[in-house]
Amino acid sequence: MKVAVIGAGAVGLFVAASLKQQGAEVALYLKNQQEQSLFENEGIYLYKKNQKTIITDIQMNPSNTKDFDGVIVCVKSYQVEQVLLDYKHVGHRHTNWLFLQNGMGHLEWIETMTSPTYVGVVEYGLLKEKEQKNRVSVKGEGRIKIAPFRGTSSAGKAEWESLFNQDVWTVLWRDDYQEMLESKLILNACINPLTALLHVRNGELVENGHYKQAMRSCFTEIIEALERSDREEKWVEVERLCKDTKENQSSMLTDLIHKRPLELDAIVGYILKRGETRGILMPTLQLVYTMLKGKQKALNKKS
Amino acid sequence: MKVAVIGAGAVGLFVAASLKQQGAEVALYLKNQQEQSLFENEGIYLYKKNQKTIITDIQMNPSNTKDFDGVIVCVKSYQVEQVLLDYKHVGHRHTNWLFLQNGMGHLEWIETMTSPTYVGVVEYGLLKEKEQKNRVSVKGEGRIKIAPFRGTSSAGKAEWESLFNQDVWTVLWRDDYQEMLESKLILNACINPLTALLHVRNGELVENGHYKQAMRSCFTEIIEALERSDREEKWVEVERLCKDTKENQSSMLTDLIHKRPLELDAIVGYILKRGETRGILMPTLQLVYTMLKGKQKALNKKS
Repeated sequence: MKVAVIGAGAVGLFVAASLKQQGAEVALYLKNQQEQSLFENEGIYLYKKNQKTIITDIQMNPSNTKDFDGVIVCVKSYQVEQVLLDYKHVGHRHTNWLFLQNGMGHLEWIETMTSPTYVGVVEYGLLKEKEQKNRVSVKGEGRIKIAPFRGTSSAGKAEWESLFNQDVWTVLWRDDYQEMLESKLILNACINPLTALLHVRNGELVENGHYKQAMRSCFTEIIEALERSDREEKWVEVERLCKDTKENQSSMLTDLIHKRPLELDAIVGYILKRGETRGILMPTLQLVYTMLKGKQKALNKKS
Repeated sequence: MKVAVIGAGAVGLFVAASLKQQGAEVALYLKNQQEQSLFENEGIYLYKKNQKTIITDIQMNPSNTKDFDGVIVCVKSYQVEQVLLDYKHVGHRHTNWLFLQNGMGHLEWIETMTSPTYVGVVEYGLLKEKEQKNRVSVKGEGRIKIAPFRGTSSAGKAEWESLFNQDVWTVLWRDDYQEMLESKLILNACINPLTALLHVRNGELVENGHYKQAMRSCFTEIIEALERSDREEKWVEVERLCKDTKENQSSMLTDLIHKRPLELDAIVGYILKRGETRGILMPTLQLVYTMLKGKQKALNKKS
């Protein structure tokens, strides 16, 4: 199977490297020309369980693009709209598309896709090196979950299934994309904004009683905005993930430190919108959102 | 007139130095023995308008303490309770006491004072050097406002008035201590917690539109908790102070950076209590309070 990966962030590198490791033919699309030469010359460095693997022979930005069986979009949520404009020509009518983003803000952009489309969530803890853009570390073992979104068929799903070699990475299938994305969204919305705002690692949100109380306030509003009935079950998941990834730096904190745009609208903004349509007050989440918007603005101004 | 100053923070140093500059006999009380020798050997360095003045001949921790006409308490609000236990013997029955603290949390401790008692607010921008504990800079010109609190007389007020030489510093009298403290409290409660949480200088709270929005959310709850009817007038004051002191680092941010306890309970805690007794919901202020409590706890743990 021939697969294109769009985006060379932590997720894109991990996906491209894993596909290549299991023998697929992989193409990687990225914007930065300097980075393109780096990947062509050095390949991808994948660090996993104290083991370094160098993955080469990945095609970079190929222009002959009609013969991909699958395209996996690994850009940040706020870049999806632009990707759809720039990469429409990648793949043919029956190419299977898979979108791996945080949050649910990107759904409105991919609703108009005419090819079979899947969405997924990445539960691996991945970290890309800031200085060496071709290196990614697996900090936490996890899974990638995938669900059909629009225009999919059982044959298409079988194609994907044959692609993912479970010896290399763990890929799980889900039926209900809404439930799958929402469950991840709750975790992201509880952990990412607060870790970014407080500049702490995930574990501190449960180790520090005051931070835990702040997270619980956010959580309460999130659950209400999403009309969830499984409140205590979800809270257990939030606490467990903080503990399981206690040494991890959340992607939003990483983005803030590296002065990159934050996935605020896809995560917190989406929940605020959902709640607002039902007239729910979310003062806690609103304050977190506003302060992070301000931080992002301040960083942009300085850089 | 013989005056004792308790506390050698930025306010204590400024008050002791100003009193000495205008010719009063001044004693300074402080806990730290190392600092006592520093003050005895080097005096106080007062930096004001690019001018350095070295003030010596201030008596340190004198044990003969009955003959003070006035005692000015310049410790942090959370230290007032302990000061009343440790320094009850300073001064006689008619000694005039003056308390210069942020917030209104200390009022419950000084309500039991049997000597004539005054309260005041410091509107100078003062900064004490971290490394050289006998040096204080006047970063922003201002005033000290004073009002009678309990058991005061016009004779006592006249004594104080004769003490403060307006050529050295500006001291203004107010009749209504509640109004005076509350007006300062509103400013402190809007500016200090957010600057500490966001790690920004005062000016950024109005220059950054998102931060301004966050401050307005806090402000709205503060005004409601304090049952103020002069909302827009107070907001103009908040904005003006942010602009007038735009390069200043708030005392709470300074305390956080230096890993000192924060005046959270005297400022935010007091307002939360006032609102809670009336059943007012203050989710924004509550979140700010909780996150700063957490930050304080985290700093204590690390140090």
